[in-house]
Amino acid sequence: MPRMTTLPLALTLGDPCGIGPEILALALRDGAVPGGFVVGDMAVMRRAAAVVGGVPVAVLDAPDEALAAPPHCIPIWQPPGLPAGLADLPWGRIHADAGRAAAACIRAAVSLVQRGEAAALVTAPIHKEALAAAGEPYPGHTELLQDLAGGVSVRMMLANDELRTVLVTIHVSLRRAIEGVTFDAVLSTIRIAHEAARRWGLAAPRIAVAGLNPHAGEGGLFGDEERTVIGPAIAAARAEGIDASGPHAPDTVFMRARHAPDHPGEFDIVVAQYHDQGLIPVKYLGLAHGVNVTLGLPFVRTSPDHGTAFDLAGTGRASPDSLIAAARLARQLAKG
Amino acid sequence: MPRMTTLPLALTLGDPCGIGPEILALALRDGAVPGGFVVGDMAVMRRAAAVVGGVPVAVLDAPDEALAAPPHCIPIWQPPGLPAGLADLPWGRIHADAGRAAAACIRAAVSLVQRGEAAALVTAPIHKEALAAAGEPYPGHTELLQDLAGGVSVRMMLANDELRTVLVTIHVSLRRAIEGVTFDAVLSTIRIAHEAARRWGLAAPRIAVAGLNPHAGEGGLFGDEERTVIGPAIAAARAEGIDASGPHAPDTVFMRARHAPDHPGEFDIVVAQYHDQGLIPVKYLGLAHGVNVTLGLPFVRTSPDHGTAFDLAGTGRASPDSLIAAARLARQLAKG
Repeated sequence: MPRMTTLPLALTLGDPCGIGPEILALALRDGAVPGGFVVGDMAVMRRAAAVVGGVPVAVLDAPDEALAAPPHCIPIWQPPGLPAGLADLPWGRIHADAGRAAAACIRAAVSLVQRGEAAALVTAPIHKEALAAAGEPYPGHTELLQDLAGGVSVRMMLANDELRTVLVTIHVSLRRAIEGVTFDAVLSTIRIAHEAARRWGLAAPRIAVAGLNPHAGEGGLFGDEERTVIGPAIAAARAEGIDASGPHAPDTVFMRARHAPDHPGEFDIVVAQYHDQGLIPVKYLGLAHGVNVTLGLPFVRTSPDHGTAFDLAGTGRASPDSLIAAARLARQLAKG
Repeated sequence: MPRMTTLPLALTLGDPCGIGPEILALALRDGAVPGGFVVGDMAVMRRAAAVVGGVPVAVLDAPDEALAAPPHCIPIWQPPGLPAGLADLPWGRIHADAGRAAAACIRAAVSLVQRGEAAALVTAPIHKEALAAAGEPYPGHTELLQDLAGGVSVRMMLANDELRTVLVTIHVSLRRAIEGVTFDAVLSTIRIAHEAARRWGLAAPRIAVAGLNPHAGEGGLFGDEERTVIGPAIAAARAEGIDASGPHAPDTVFMRARHAPDHPGEFDIVVAQYHDQGLIPVKYLGLAHGVNVTLGLPFVRTSPDHGTAFDLAGTGRASPDSLIAAARLARQLAKG
């Protein structure tokens, strides 16, 4: 049986009271997400369509109809069991029903991707407190998706057109991040990055591992984690046949990895040891193009690099750029 | 008496066995340093001129003759007392006489700047071990210049056309850098940055102070240095009338400060808490344009952001780009 060359792209609604619905409406209106369809609530999307100046909504009976939807409309597939009255909730407020609907759309979309009915998952932003109000035990997307995928180990990747960086540690103080840079954490980050990049179609992904200290420790003069932890983890990864290199000086490895028209990058992915080491270079050229990718899941999942922006919700002024970049990257990674 | 509008720019030779002489020759040959003259050894510069294909050398009796030197030549002023035979030393080797000559040229150039005979100081790279072999007690430029200026407190600034960042801590492990982020260190960095920028001609420099932790601590959730140390130092600086703001989220403050044709930066200088926080964004777009500036001295001093590159010395293949950027920035800062 020939492999299907095109599957639709599942776009989850996000929190109905945040900017998710309206940035989805803008992106689809502008034809910026070919083959994309919203997994969400019809009334909520109609409200969002009105906010951005009126966009036709195409109700799908099945996800694969998304590929035949007319251009510049909002194809939507509504999963069963969403709470009633979502489109009457005030913009920019935390509501249990909003959290409930956001989670239900994610579960339904994951199930579509797992059944092979969608190519990949692109998630609009959800609100942690609305999720908690709905009684969900997950602090955010990552933990919910991890659970739906059977408890796999995941890592956060930040990407734009020029740079892809995967983080060993994330949302902890810099002091605790240093403690979190262990042999196991570094090795498993390298492995997850390698496996993910193989699935995107890179036969031998070139993975650069950043040091923790200035000049990657300058031979032990400025810290020894490179010799005691990071170096050995790289050696272990190489022994498994992974093309991992480093530890590299943090202040130049991102520049070296940068892919630009006049600058072919030396590496495919950079493993960063802590949040700001990886996020400063990814964000340096402008937030709008940053995309968040969850590595380690058995499917491709991307999301824009911003939150629900409750203060902007319902104004139609939020930018769909990061969502569009997330959808484009999901399509690209899923094709591998 | 009217203020002189133009003074020559003093360019120190650097280590005679490194790439300093030849990048000076290239920059001057190409007319890229108007009004610049070398403070160095004539024979060494003749050797460097030959290496880059032959450039005429114009020997000056006094520095102010540099302004009248013909274009595309190497104006050189030789200070008294340099060791003999410098041009016979092998390229790319550590030698006590090379260290002695490098230090003597720096001392002579500082004295010219202090006497008002040169606008600013641009230093070509020196070699730490050659300096030590010469019996100099200084590990590098910074400490020697600090001493010549009477023991002032200095900070390292890294700059390119888009971004200027001053570092609270420099060459220590990340663990020790965290310990080095104290109230006094942050406040004095802000003050030094403010004073320097005022001297460059900015009436009220906008100084952004980066946090130490992800999201600047997220209200204490990811670390408390923002509340206990950095915030109070910013408040103290503001009480002195300095336009300091923050602590800002480290992953976006550099992007916000970035000055590009399509992106007016929100700040004039970013105070970074540790080496890689500041250097990753400055270097991200390419090493060649990075310039090192020593703030806190009573005169302007810049240097290229690379070392003596002994492996390249004498080949004529080293790039003068960073030196040229350093000279251009020195001229710009000295005009303030």
